[in-house]
Amino acid sequence: MSVYEERVGRAVELMMKHGMDAIILTKPANMFYLTGDGRLCAYAMVTLGGKVALGLPQTDLEDVKSLAHFDHVVGFEDEVGMIHSIAHYFGHFGIRQGTVGLEYAFLPQPRMGMLTHPHAKPVAVATKDCTPIMSELRLVKDDDEIERIRAAAKVAEVGMRAAVKSIKPGATENQVAAEAEYAMRQAGAVDFYRSYVASGPRTSIAHGVPTLRRLQTGDLVVIDLHPVVNGYSADMGRTVCVGKPTAEQQTAYDLYVKALETTVGKIKAGVGMQDLEQTMHGVFEEAGHGAHIFGPPIHGLGIEFEESPLPAGHAFFHGEKAPAPLVANVVIAVGNCGLYTGPWGIRDEDTVVVGTDGPIVLTNFPRQLECCV
Amino acid sequence: MSVYEERVGRAVELMMKHGMDAIILTKPANMFYLTGDGRLCAYAMVTLGGKVALGLPQTDLEDVKSLAHFDHVVGFEDEVGMIHSIAHYFGHFGIRQGTVGLEYAFLPQPRMGMLTHPHAKPVAVATKDCTPIMSELRLVKDDDEIERIRAAAKVAEVGMRAAVKSIKPGATENQVAAEAEYAMRQAGAVDFYRSYVASGPRTSIAHGVPTLRRLQTGDLVVIDLHPVVNGYSADMGRTVCVGKPTAEQQTAYDLYVKALETTVGKIKAGVGMQDLEQTMHGVFEEAGHGAHIFGPPIHGLGIEFEESPLPAGHAFFHGEKAPAPLVANVVIAVGNCGLYTGPWGIRDEDTVVVGTDGPIVLTNFPRQLECCV
Repeated sequence: MSVYEERVGRAVELMMKHGMDAIILTKPANMFYLTGDGRLCAYAMVTLGGKVALGLPQTDLEDVKSLAHFDHVVGFEDEVGMIHSIAHYFGHFGIRQGTVGLEYAFLPQPRMGMLTHPHAKPVAVATKDCTPIMSELRLVKDDDEIERIRAAAKVAEVGMRAAVKSIKPGATENQVAAEAEYAMRQAGAVDFYRSYVASGPRTSIAHGVPTLRRLQTGDLVVIDLHPVVNGYSADMGRTVCVGKPTAEQQTAYDLYVKALETTVGKIKAGVGMQDLEQTMHGVFEEAGHGAHIFGPPIHGLGIEFEESPLPAGHAFFHGEKAPAPLVANVVIAVGNCGLYTGPWGIRDEDTVVVGTDGPIVLTNFPRQLECCV
Repeated sequence: MSVYEERVGRAVELMMKHGMDAIILTKPANMFYLTGDGRLCAYAMVTLGGKVALGLPQTDLEDVKSLAHFDHVVGFEDEVGMIHSIAHYFGHFGIRQGTVGLEYAFLPQPRMGMLTHPHAKPVAVATKDCTPIMSELRLVKDDDEIERIRAAAKVAEVGMRAAVKSIKPGATENQVAAEAEYAMRQAGAVDFYRSYVASGPRTSIAHGVPTLRRLQTGDLVVIDLHPVVNGYSADMGRTVCVGKPTAEQQTAYDLYVKALETTVGKIKAGVGMQDLEQTMHGVFEEAGHGAHIFGPPIHGLGIEFEESPLPAGHAFFHGEKAPAPLVANVVIAVGNCGLYTGPWGIRDEDTVVVGTDGPIVLTNFPRQLECCV
């Protein structure tokens, strides 16, 4: 039995449990997990009988045949063709009533409208959100997935090395991002979730996409990389200083590292996300920095650089369930919460496998605040 | 009056026309258009009185103040804070009933749920899709916008030059993408919509994201670049051959260029998107390649690399209206439709301003099928 047959088997169990007769996936990450191929403008229908039916642009038929696990595949010319192909599959599988699961957390109304169009879905078939099913399926990683994330982590380290090496007064944030991404593509990353490079006052913002701002001596620089390797991502962040940090910057950085490493040290099967969050925030609070925290410090990763388990607050607003205590072989990123003092911020982040007895840290780039001197 | 005040004024006119008392935008491209700043996890509320109220992570308050046009701004700590800040603005503006416009084509259900949460939106306020309003607002570009798109087009040319230069047997698609993106970041692009590099049999797929496939002599390579410069994108594609093309490849390429250039030649104010589509498809059909076309050949671009005007079929499924005849200073990409023979495909694409009397082509990278010899 292939890994995809095994995954479809588990999907079928969850569909039974949640009362779904089929699911239709259009989110590439979910399609990739169940079939080995995820692409835009395509869908995968999975039935209670464990059958997988794909629909995709007719141009892609030959390509997908060499990449995906499926029982049926059909090409279409346009959106109308896509709708009719869905109707065809509903007919083929004899699904005239019951419930189909759709990715409510991924589909804005017009695309939801395509999948539920009366020319696609039989009117007597109800719909239900299958987001929680897919997140539950993808939560615990198998050995091959962990190796892929490990490979992505190594590529993130290559990118971070190139980024740090490029830091000098006068370089733009964007040039630092250029070096990181170039090195990561050379090392095998075929895509990136956003590469963040934020410097000086911009280190205090939540999502530091690079700009043309030029680095100045004494700036902190927050670099956060998310390469995609073999379909899986890693998440690593480091903060460095252009030259020698001030005593205040060094003290804040040391505190951040203490908070991060204390938190990572507590990771093992059975621990709750919220316990870890409280640990990290607690170290900041104890040092008088309770007002300088922003954001929950932990999220899952895998095919996506942010996926289940999500922090309880985030989860609710992403159509996810609040996370249960962590189990072995869940992979998380730790450190997503920054320490924001006002004039500057700090953020280191690492990718960690939840082990039975402790953490397995996949990103090991050295921490060194001072650089380029 | 700043450009943003002028744009908000036009937004207010459309809101009146469509019966909306306010709109709440969370799509960065739309926020960027009306306020000069678009970022994740933030929103802009615009009222009938022309007031702009922003909400965003509290970490970003100082940053946004230097970038955005607004009347009110508030920082929040998390999703719950975001919801409460929206309620606060509804109260502040005295909006207790009426209609608020939301971006239905952008918001999957959980995020729609945040904006319509009973702790955010007064229950007596109805909601309506403001996608068509924002598309109408952004449709015709002003001189500054066209200059930004022109700058992006120049950067795309730099990227294409680097890509073509890197093509040789044994190089991976991904390495070609690396060279293109590196050169584009050095030239000032701070982001990219996906960079496509597809070679050999992969030239026949619809969305050719780069892989680790190695180029072989005789392969065609389709390269399609979308850099973001000063907030605006360009869209340029070129097909090249690794070495000398076969006679069949050259003939197909010449046909493609003929179809593309004939179509571009017809662009001017008053022409319909469908007329242009029929022109391009007509050249293929006349040459016996009617069965080898996929996809509508034209889409708008600006802040996004694909935006209104969208082809009629696409438009419907993206919550947009079917496009009216083109007017001056709309910017479109032409050539998005490939010529797919089976073993390989061809796609060149250019960014063109609709002029009063004819086309103004912004992407001028030379067409030359044969390369690397």
